[in-house]
Amino acid sequence: MRFLSDNAARVHPNVLAALAKADDHDLPYDGDRWSAALDERFSELFGRECAGLWIATGTAANCLALGTLVQPHGALVCHEEAHVEMDEGGAPGFYLHGAKLILAKGEGALLSRADIEAVTAGIRDDVHQVQPHAISITQASEYGRVYTPAMLAKLGTYAKESGLGLHMDGARFANAVAYLDCSAAEAVGPCDTLAFGFIKNGGMSAEAVVLFDPERAAEVRYRRKRAGHLQCKGRYQAAQILAMLEDDLWLQNARHSNAAAAEIASACGERLLHAVEANELFVHLDTQEREALRKQGFEFYDWGDDAARFVTAWDTRPEDAMGLAKAVAAL
Amino acid sequence: MRFLSDNAARVHPNVLAALAKADDHDLPYDGDRWSAALDERFSELFGRECAGLWIATGTAANCLALGTLVQPHGALVCHEEAHVEMDEGGAPGFYLHGAKLILAKGEGALLSRADIEAVTAGIRDDVHQVQPHAISITQASEYGRVYTPAMLAKLGTYAKESGLGLHMDGARFANAVAYLDCSAAEAVGPCDTLAFGFIKNGGMSAEAVVLFDPERAAEVRYRRKRAGHLQCKGRYQAAQILAMLEDDLWLQNARHSNAAAAEIASACGERLLHAVEANELFVHLDTQEREALRKQGFEFYDWGDDAARFVTAWDTRPEDAMGLAKAVAAL
Amino acid sequence: MRFLSDNAARVHPNVLAALAKADDHDLPYDGDRWSAALDERFSELFGRECAGLWIATGTAANCLALGTLVQPHGALVCHEEAHVEMDEGGAPGFYLHGAKLILAKGEGALLSRADIEAVTAGIRDDVHQVQPHAISITQASEYGRVYTPAMLAKLGTYAKESGLGLHMDGARFANAVAYLDCSAAEAVGPCDTLAFGFIKNGGMSAEAVVLFDPERAAEVRYRRKRAGHLQCKGRYQAAQILAMLEDDLWLQNARHSNAAAAEIASACGERLLHAVEANELFVHLDTQEREALRKQGFEFYDWGDDAARFVTAWDTRPEDAMGLAKAVAAL
Amino acid sequence: MRFLSDNAARVHPNVLAALAKADDHDLPYDGDRWSAALDERFSELFGRECAGLWIATGTAANCLALGTLVQPHGALVCHEEAHVEMDEGGAPGFYLHGAKLILAKGEGALLSRADIEAVTAGIRDDVHQVQPHAISITQASEYGRVYTPAMLAKLGTYAKESGLGLHMDGARFANAVAYLDCSAAEAVGPCDTLAFGFIKNGGMSAEAVVLFDPERAAEVRYRRKRAGHLQCKGRYQAAQILAMLEDDLWLQNARHSNAAAAEIASACGERLLHAVEANELFVHLDTQEREALRKQGFEFYDWGDDAARFVTAWDTRPEDAMGLAKAVAAL
Repeated sequence: MRFLSDNAARVHPNVLAALAKADDHDLPYDGDRWSAALDERFSELFGRECAGLWIATGTAANCLALGTLVQPHGALVCHEEAHVEMDEGGAPGFYLHGAKLILAKGEGALLSRADIEAVTAGIRDDVHQVQPHAISITQASEYGRVYTPAMLAKLGTYAKESGLGLHMDGARFANAVAYLDCSAAEAVGPCDTLAFGFIKNGGMSAEAVVLFDPERAAEVRYRRKRAGHLQCKGRYQAAQILAMLEDDLWLQNARHSNAAAAEIASACGERLLHAVEANELFVHLDTQEREALRKQGFEFYDWGDDAARFVTAWDTRPEDAMGLAKAVAAL
Repeated sequence: MRFLSDNAARVHPNVLAALAKADDHDLPYDGDRWSAALDERFSELFGRECAGLWIATGTAANCLALGTLVQPHGALVCHEEAHVEMDEGGAPGFYLHGAKLILAKGEGALLSRADIEAVTAGIRDDVHQVQPHAISITQASEYGRVYTPAMLAKLGTYAKESGLGLHMDGARFANAVAYLDCSAAEAVGPCDTLAFGFIKNGGMSAEAVVLFDPERAAEVRYRRKRAGHLQCKGRYQAAQILAMLEDDLWLQNARHSNAAAAEIASACGERLLHAVEANELFVHLDTQEREALRKQGFEFYDWGDDAARFVTAWDTRPEDAMGLAKAVAAL
Repeated sequence: MRFLSDNAARVHPNVLAALAKADDHDLPYDGDRWSAALDERFSELFGRECAGLWIATGTAANCLALGTLVQPHGALVCHEEAHVEMDEGGAPGFYLHGAKLILAKGEGALLSRADIEAVTAGIRDDVHQVQPHAISITQASEYGRVYTPAMLAKLGTYAKESGLGLHMDGARFANAVAYLDCSAAEAVGPCDTLAFGFIKNGGMSAEAVVLFDPERAAEVRYRRKRAGHLQCKGRYQAAQILAMLEDDLWLQNARHSNAAAAEIASACGERLLHAVEANELFVHLDTQEREALRKQGFEFYDWGDDAARFVTAWDTRPEDAMGLAKAVAAL
Repeated sequence: MRFLSDNAARVHPNVLAALAKADDHDLPYDGDRWSAALDERFSELFGRECAGLWIATGTAANCLALGTLVQPHGALVCHEEAHVEMDEGGAPGFYLHGAKLILAKGEGALLSRADIEAVTAGIRDDVHQVQPHAISITQASEYGRVYTPAMLAKLGTYAKESGLGLHMDGARFANAVAYLDCSAAEAVGPCDTLAFGFIKNGGMSAEAVVLFDPERAAEVRYRRKRAGHLQCKGRYQAAQILAMLEDDLWLQNARHSNAAAAEIASACGERLLHAVEANELFVHLDTQEREALRKQGFEFYDWGDDAARFVTAWDTRPEDAMGLAKAVAAL
C-alpha cells in the first residue's frame, strides 16, 4: 500500500517487453530505427511538426529544452517551488551556464501573468540586472494542479508580448491530459518546448524533450551529446517511449493513477490543501492521524508538520486506493 | 556478420533478466538496495575501498570522474585521438567548466611519460598559460592497445611527482583485463578514477564511475544529479551492473570478444596497423579488398582510405569470426 | 550639488598623481614593483598575512573571492537586495559556473544567523537540493548599515560551525571602518575574503581582492587572468591602491563622506528609512518634496514612489551637504 | 634600451592628459558622454555603422567578441600559437562556456583557407565531434606578420561559404594598418568582430571591442557587465580611446614603432626568422651574441635557444633602435 512516489512504481510490462523486442543489432546512439521514428510519432501526437528526443531524466529534459530559450546571461522565471528550482540539484545553473532563476509565487504552484509580473516588473532594463528570457511552468504542477487550455493561452500571449520563451515541465503531463480530457496539443498549448515525462507513468529510463520549433533540434542533439546523455544503445531508450505511446498507454496509465487519486480525494474533503487534479494529494493530517494510517500499512511522506503527501501511480491497486480512502474517512 | 561496433551488440540475457528481477517497488533515485550494493561490490573487485556509481554513458562517466581531478582553470592531458577529445562532443569542456585539453601523441593511442612531457615541458608556470591538472589514459586504448601494470606504475609515479591526477577511460576495461589476465586492480594500477564500461560488453544503459578516493564520492553524487544523470528508477541501472559483475560475466564476455578478435588477427599478419590486444582490429585493406569482404556479407567501417576497422563483441558468433579470418586470408 | 552616486565622483588628485608617477617602464602585468608591494601593504593594514590583488571592478572582486569559497554545485547565501544578486548582471552565475544564490531577508540589508537559517534550515541534505557553501555580507550594507565586530564574530562562529565560507563585499568598506572607528582588521572580522572598494572612495579603476588565506592567492591569480582581468600595465592599477592606502587616504576620504551624510541625516529625523551609518541616505520624501529639492539644484535618485536616495562622496562639498540639510529641514 | 615588450612601454602623454580632462562628475558606468561617443567615433573610422565598447584587456576583448560567434557547444579555429590559445590563461574556455579551440598550423602565425581546412576537413558532421563555429586571426600576427586585404577577402569568402564567423585579434592592429598603409576598414576586411588594441600602443587600460554587426552590441554589453568588466567610472576608459583616436594618434604611434622595427630589421638580414612587418623582430642570435648585446645594455627576451625577440614601442627612442641595429650588424 505504497503512496510514496510514482518514481517508486514498477515498469509497465509493455515497456519491459519493448526492451526485449529492441534487443537486436542496430546502429548505435540514435541512428537506429526506433529513435528515428520519434519525431514522426510526436508530430502525430501533437498534430504539428515537432522533434522528439529521448533523454534519461526529467532534469536533463528540462535543461536541454531550456537551453534553447535562455541565454547564459539571461534568467528563467519559475515558481518558487518548481522542480527546476527545488529538486534538480542546480542543473539549470549548469546547463544554462550560470543563467539565473527568478522565483515567483503562485497558488498551487501554478503561475499566472500577474504572478510573473509581480517579480519581473521591477527589473530595470539595464545591464546591471539579469533580464528574463523565458518562463517555465509545470503541467501538472508540483501541487498536482493543472493548467487549462485557456490559462495556457493567456500565458502564451503574455510570453509572446514580452519576448519570453515558454517551457513546460511535463513530468506528469500525462496526468494533466487525462484530467483535462483534451488532446496533448491542447494541454501543451503555446509552449515552445516540453519535457514529456514517461518514467513516473510506467517507463523505465526514457523521458522525451519535445521541441515545437524543430529547427532547434540539431542544436539540442549536439547539446545532448555534450551533456553525456547520448546513450550508446539508444534503441532501448526509444523503444520505451514508443511502447508508452502505442495505443495511448501513457494516457491509460495516467487515467488509472488519476482515478486512484480521485478515489482517495473523495474521502478527504476539507483536509485537502490543494484541489486534486492529477495523481498527487496533499492532505491535512496531524501526527496521530498519520501514525494511525501508517499502522494500517499505508506508506507516504510527511508534508511539513501537519500534512502528508500521497502519490498514486499507474500500478496503484484500486483496492489500496479504496482502502486508503476508507481509512482517511474513518479518522 | 557484423563487425561495426560493440555498441551495436545486443544486451546480454542476464542483464535483461536482471531488469525483470529489479522490477519491484523500492526507493527512487539511488536509494534502492541494488544501488546501495555498488560501493561494496566494486571495493571487493578492486581489493580496496572505493565508491562506484552508475551512470548512463561513458562520456558522463569520464567527465564526472575528471571533475574531481581538474579545476576549471586547469588542463587535462590526453592523447590526440582520445575519446574525450575526439568523440564526446565537447563534454569535457562542459563538465569541467571550460578547462583545456592538451593533446599528446603516442604510439597506438597509448601515452608514456615522454609523450606527455613532449607537450607539457614547454608550459611556463605563469598565469598566462593553462597548467595541466590531470592525465587521462584509455584502457584498452582507442587503437585496441593495452597498458601493462608496469606501464601504469611508471605513469603513476610521474603523475604523483608532477602533482597530476590520473584518470582511466575504461570503456573497454574488461577487454584489457582479459588480455592482461590479471586482476582488475592490476589493470587500473595507480589511477585515481576509472570510467568502467559495461555497455559495449553486454550491458544496456549503465556504466560506472569508480573513485579510488571514496571521499570524493559525495561531490560526484551532487554533480551527477546536477548533470541530470541521477535516474528516477536507479535500481534498473544498478541491477545491470550487478548482473555484469556476477560470476565475472564482464570478464567472460570480454574474453569471448577478445578471442574472436585474436582469431581474425591471426589471419591478418602484416595487414595489422596495431597489435591486437583487445577487441578492435585496424587492418590494411584496399578498396577492392573491402568491397570483396562486404560482398561476402561482412559489415565494418572504413578506416581512412586503405584500411578498415573491425570490432568484435560479446555476442560475435565464433563462426563469423572464423569466416572473416578465412575471408581475409583468402584475399 | 550632486548626490546621485559615489560612482559619479571624481578621482582623488593623489590617485591621478600616482598614475603619473607610475608612468615608467616596468615589467608588464603584475610583475612590476607597485603590484609586488600589495601583499605586504595589505598584510600590514590587516595585521596578518594576506594576499591583495588589484582588479578593475567590485563585481569581479566579489566573484573572484567567492570562487575560492563556492564550488559550482554549491550555493551562496546572500541578502535578497545584495549587490551580488541585484546589480552584478549575473556575474556570480558566470564566475561560479552556475552556482546558486539563496536569498535571505534581513533588516537594513544586514544578515544575522537567524536570517540565514530562515532560508537554509529547510534544505535537505541530499543531492536534489543545492547545498550552501558560503555566505556573502556587505560592509557597509546596501542600505548604508554597518556590521559591528560583535555581529561579525557571531556570523563567523556560525559559518565555522556550518562549514560555510564567509565573504565580505566591501564596496564601501572604508565608510564602515570610518563609522566604527576601529581597525580594518576589526571591521572585516572573521571573513575569509574581502572585496575592498577604492573606486567609489576616490580611486579610478582599481579595487582589491583580499584573501586572508594567502594559499588561495595562486588560484585567484590564475582565475583573474582567465577572466581577462590581468591588465597589461598593472602598475597603473597597483599605484592607485598604494596612493589610496598611503597616509590613510582611504580612511580620510570615507570620514569626509560619512560626515557629509551625517550632516544631512541630522536634518532628516523621522524621514530616514534606515539609520545612517555610512554615506548613503534613504529618505522619505513625497513627489512634491523631491521636486522642490530638485528645483533647488539637488541631484539624486528616486527610491520607490515616496523616497529618495542620497549618496555623499569624498568630494562632496561641505556647503552642499549643509545646503541639502537645510533644504530638507525647510520642507 | 628596452625591447622587452610594448606592454612595458609608458602611457602616451595625451592619454594621461585625457584622464585629467575626464576628471569631472558624470554618470557612472558607460552612461557618460565619453563612452557615448565611441560608437560614432568607430563608425567614422571604419566607414560603416559599428559598435565600439571599451574593455580593460585584449583577452576580455577577444572573448566578448568571440561570444557572439561561437556557441558553447561549438569550436573556434585559431593558429596553434595564437594568443587566445597560448597566452590567455584559458579565458576562451571560460567566456565561451567550454567551447573548444581547434589548432591550425600556418606560416608566420598567419592562417590561410588551406591551413584551416587541414584541421577541419576531417571533422564528421555528427554530434560526437565539436563543429567549428568561427575562425580567429591575429592582425598583426603573433610573429609580426600582416594579413593583406586580399588575404582577408579570401578568408572572408571561405568563412561565409562555411557558415563560420570571423574574428580579428587586433592587439597590434595599429601596426598592421601602419604597415599596409591602408584604411582601418581595409585592414579589418570582412571580419565580424575586432578586438582593437590601444594599450601596447600608448594607452593605459582601455582596449575596444568593435562589432560590425551592431545588433549584437546589446548582448555584448550584458556580457561585459556579467564578466565584471563594466567599470564604475567608465569615462576614464572611454577618454583614453578617444585620445588615441584623435588626430590618428594610434596610427602615428604605430608608424613610430614600425619604423624603429624596420631600422633594426635592416641590420638583421638572414638572421630574421620572420619578415618584419609590424613592431616585432624574431632574430637568430646564438648565446654569445645575445650576451654581447645584453652587455651593451639591450634588454630583450630569448626566443628558444638560438634566437631573441625584440619589440619596439611608441616610445622607443630612435637612437636606441639605431644603436641596436648597429650592434647587431657588428656581431
